Amino acid sequence: MDSRNPVLSSRWYGTAFRVRYQETDQMGVVYHANYLSWFESGRTEMFRELGFAYRSLEKMGVLLPVTAADLQFKSPARYDDLVAVYARLTTFSALRVVYEYEIRRLAEPGTGEARASAPGVLSGPADHGQLPGELLVAGSTSHVWLNMDWKPVRLDRMLPELFYAITLALKEEGGAV
Amino acid sequence: MDSRNPVLSSRWYGTAFRVRYQETDQMGVVYHANYLSWFESGRTEMFRELGFAYRSLEKMGVLLPVTAADLQFKSPARYDDLVAVYARLTTFSALRVVYEYEIRRLAEPGTGEARASAPGVLSGPADHGQLPGELLVAGSTSHVWLNMDWKPVRLDRMLPELFYAITLALKEEGGAV
Amino acid sequence: MDSRNPVLSSRWYGTAFRVRYQETDQMGVVYHANYLSWFESGRTEMFRELGFAYRSLEKMGVLLPVTAADLQFKSPARYDDLVAVYARLTTFSALRVVYEYEIRRLAEPGTGEARASAPGVLSGPADHGQLPGELLVAGSTSHVWLNMDWKPVRLDRMLPELFYAITLALKEEGGAV
Amino acid sequence: MDSRNPVLSSRWYGTAFRVRYQETDQMGVVYHANYLSWFESGRTEMFRELGFAYRSLEKMGVLLPVTAADLQFKSPARYDDLVAVYARLTTFSALRVVYEYEIRRLAEPGTGEARASAPGVLSGPADHGQLPGELLVAGSTSHVWLNMDWKPVRLDRMLPELFYAITLALKEEGGAV
Repeated sequence: MDSRNPVLSSRWYGTAFRVRYQETDQMGVVYHANYLSWFESGRTEMFRELGFAYRSLEKMGVLLPVTAADLQFKSPARYDDLVAVYARLTTFSALRVVYEYEIRRLAEPGTGEARASAPGVLSGPADHGQLPGELLVAGSTSHVWLNMDWKPVRLDRMLPELFYAITLALKEEGGAV
Repeated sequence: MDSRNPVLSSRWYGTAFRVRYQETDQMGVVYHANYLSWFESGRTEMFRELGFAYRSLEKMGVLLPVTAADLQFKSPARYDDLVAVYARLTTFSALRVVYEYEIRRLAEPGTGEARASAPGVLSGPADHGQLPGELLVAGSTSHVWLNMDWKPVRLDRMLPELFYAITLALKEEGGAV
Repeated sequence: MDSRNPVLSSRWYGTAFRVRYQETDQMGVVYHANYLSWFESGRTEMFRELGFAYRSLEKMGVLLPVTAADLQFKSPARYDDLVAVYARLTTFSALRVVYEYEIRRLAEPGTGEARASAPGVLSGPADHGQLPGELLVAGSTSHVWLNMDWKPVRLDRMLPELFYAITLALKEEGGAV
Repeated sequence: MDSRNPVLSSRWYGTAFRVRYQETDQMGVVYHANYLSWFESGRTEMFRELGFAYRSLEKMGVLLPVTAADLQFKSPARYDDLVAVYARLTTFSALRVVYEYEIRRLAEPGTGEARASAPGVLSGPADHGQLPGELLVAGSTSHVWLNMDWKPVRLDRMLPELFYAITLALKEEGGAV
């Protein structure tokens, strides 16, 4: 690894919400393409927790589109379930970003083990800990940094302040590889 | 009004969430059909606040599909905005249900007037009070009680316990007309 | 009516397509907010049939967002149904545009009355004729002409050539009121 | 390979449609999760071309949910583009099904090479031929046969007539491996 181009990772960040009726299909479960959209909610909230807003990226002139995605569907979510999407960075560099995700069904508020049981940002568990709830979907997405003309850019050259701020935030939360 | 078939209404109930990237379109604002879906989130959360789960209705054999809807679009929501959907019943009877909605942009957490500023259920204001935030969309939806064969039913005859439980909940919160 | 600001209407234009699995919900029918999105497909195809592309409007610097919508849900569409959205202009002026819609279930190809039975643009019937198929949803949407700063504009002043080209196309198809 | 459990594949089947406004996001391109939904349109139309209706499967008591998916995003589709989703079976067996997909932007009707240039089913090219248009997204989905209780089933035992009818259709179109 190039010391000038560290590849960083992060702990898990979680955000919880209720499944919407619209997200179901006639099999009585969540339509599978919605999980890919939930992944996005997960990385947006993670980024916000780190102290950044994804929408400010676009205002600064960079895009971070998805170049590849994979999903493993273990068990379906259902209408009105309280679910959480957990996201973590497995690669953060000046050129590209890779996220890993787990979507999990949480216990209902008021029931036994429910330590994370209302919509909103969840206080993340330790890296090596067990994420709460039942695993429904796992997956990952890969991204590249682009400018507004959809040309690849190096984030450390285009927006060095942002790049080092994110780097610092990731190091402070202990995510350096 | 038939005393055996009171028509009840309710106060406003609010639930807040962040606008998802997927919900935007290339005008840079929320695609207009999503507001109709948000109305549904509003009435679901209202129903839950009253002590009922919409999904349990379907398990009891009744459906409450939308028969008409109208929307007035005042100002667009944008990606990552913190928005709230406020819902209230203007008609609740054994035959039909009408909801009214306001979708409002809330102040960001940490800023001045933000009294309701995180995703989740909002403590509703009084009926005649001013809802917080900036009005984006107003509208209403009408519904009829159907059985699983999509035939109209009278809720007070088909599920009298449920009907009177909802009636009681609405009266207790002071919503009788 | 101001002779400088004629208000024009149009005949019905139809476009047919198959209901997607994603568009269903756990009631086994099309989720109601999708019909509002289908209205948009209807007006886009109508506009194309008239010889214009909605996307070229945005390149010319005008937006035509929805300011109000209403929908009456008569009967639900189901997965894989062959449906058509019919759209017509009831108001076309330099300031605003109003569309009316009918969503109808068509006969399957190969069956009796199926004169319009494959996905694609449908040859529209006469104004006063009967639209084919079974009426599922009716509705309307209202729009205003805006510039890229979301300020109202008069289309006849901002883009007079476009305005008169549309006016001419509508008159030629016999839609003048 | 077990002769009683042949693993079959198929040629490419294509279906074309216009990108809807709702499918775009504020980057001005199609929101990435929609491609996963388009894959489904592709496999549904392929199945119909083979002489079967996916919805009839569910009526016969079998489900074919997605267990895994992967997508590579090469270039984005934009609003109003004429795109085609091409689907082919790479595995069809009594236990599982794997599809491969390509989403391609087609030439506009009336322009040079446009041999497949209107919405609807496309006449598929030969297996080893070149699919038309510009490759936008490639991917695959894996599926298992389940009964209505979401338990895995062998299709050749549960619905032998259907299984052998599909097998025959695939062999007749020359897709045997």
